[in-house]
Amino acid sequence: MNELYVVGLGPGDPDLITVKGYKMLMDADLIYYPYTSFKYAENILIALGIDKKKMQPLEFPIRSLDLLKKIRENACRIKNSLEFYDSVVYAVEGDPMLYSTFLDLYRYLDCKVRFIPGISSINAAAAIFGIPMAEKDEIFTIIPAVNDYEYMKKMIMGTKNGAIIKAIGAKDVLKKLLDDEHLKKYYIMENVSLKSQKIYNNINDIDSYMALVILK
Amino acid sequence: MNELYVVGLGPGDPDLITVKGYKMLMDADLIYYPYTSFKYAENILIALGIDKKKMQPLEFPIRSLDLLKKIRENACRIKNSLEFYDSVVYAVEGDPMLYSTFLDLYRYLDCKVRFIPGISSINAAAAIFGIPMAEKDEIFTIIPAVNDYEYMKKMIMGTKNGAIIKAIGAKDVLKKLLDDEHLKKYYIMENVSLKSQKIYNNINDIDSYMALVILK
Repeated sequence: MNELYVVGLGPGDPDLITVKGYKMLMDADLIYYPYTSFKYAENILIALGIDKKKMQPLEFPIRSLDLLKKIRENACRIKNSLEFYDSVVYAVEGDPMLYSTFLDLYRYLDCKVRFIPGISSINAAAAIFGIPMAEKDEIFTIIPAVNDYEYMKKMIMGTKNGAIIKAIGAKDVLKKLLDDEHLKKYYIMENVSLKSQKIYNNINDIDSYMALVILK
Repeated sequence: MNELYVVGLGPGDPDLITVKGYKMLMDADLIYYPYTSFKYAENILIALGIDKKKMQPLEFPIRSLDLLKKIRENACRIKNSLEFYDSVVYAVEGDPMLYSTFLDLYRYLDCKVRFIPGISSINAAAAIFGIPMAEKDEIFTIIPAVNDYEYMKKMIMGTKNGAIIKAIGAKDVLKKLLDDEHLKKYYIMENVSLKSQKIYNNINDIDSYMALVILK
């Protein structure tokens, strides 16, 4: 059976895909991608000039009780298509190995998978801000926001260099950490590298699912 | 004065540079890069087909007492060239914001700098192994190896998902952590994405500066 290639599209700017990823998309017979109302992956594929006829959106209705059933159904659909198409790609926003939607599917896919890395929104935000993520012997920590004040306080107080992702999911907790002066030096960006990119000065202003916080 | 563009070359495979970074290198009038005996950056630039006449190696003799003097001299040289060339690029291995050699220079450069991110060797190694770095609410930690048993023990015991970089610098400490069963599930790769790429089964086998350890 053919292998599935999983390509990281990068943070949003179509030119931030790798040359290798771009070549694979151009050569692919069929390209699956996660379909969301934000259309991040779809917009990147269209901007790259991919033929719409070979683009196949896959839905993962997050709040659905049947999510697991849908994931298995999509995994089965992808696997089956490997028998009919020589070059099948699954395209994901950011980096496929870092919090990507593909990772939910991965465990149900009974086929060989090869990954092409992508620029994550964290690396891209650091580059746009011009702020080093970490230097020399410094530790760098990626913290998905969790709606738990004590947990987030502990994580943030132990982190000199890091990034909080999915920030909106714990907006009230982050606000309280800011008020209590546990959250000090930070930089916030939403829609990293897109035309709609926005920089916030204050945690209180966060209003988007796609906002991330760089901690220094 | 013109701006300096800092381009991440990615982990080693020339095709793992971003499309944006590649275009910038092709359009550049002058390309600085860190010169080491390993020639990582130089080899990527040559493989990408960059005109050798516009490539300018910069030495950073790590063990030299005059390192700071050399860094300042290189910073001055780069800044001066911005007055004579329209498009000056500094090319670094991996991602410029993550432990890159450019970050030492950055604080001494009195000019505007723009960054193009690159794939780090950690993201590339995870992709090649097919091992997720982190999923959902999991934390991911990058730990530069430090030659201190208690410090590394504490860091490793607190890390479910992470990567140890510069592993050879603390090889004996890592060996002891392995013997004492503090280091359990790990994957080691050196020269990530290059033809000389090598996967190790045991910490004891690490023999290269370019080896990194993925922790799960």
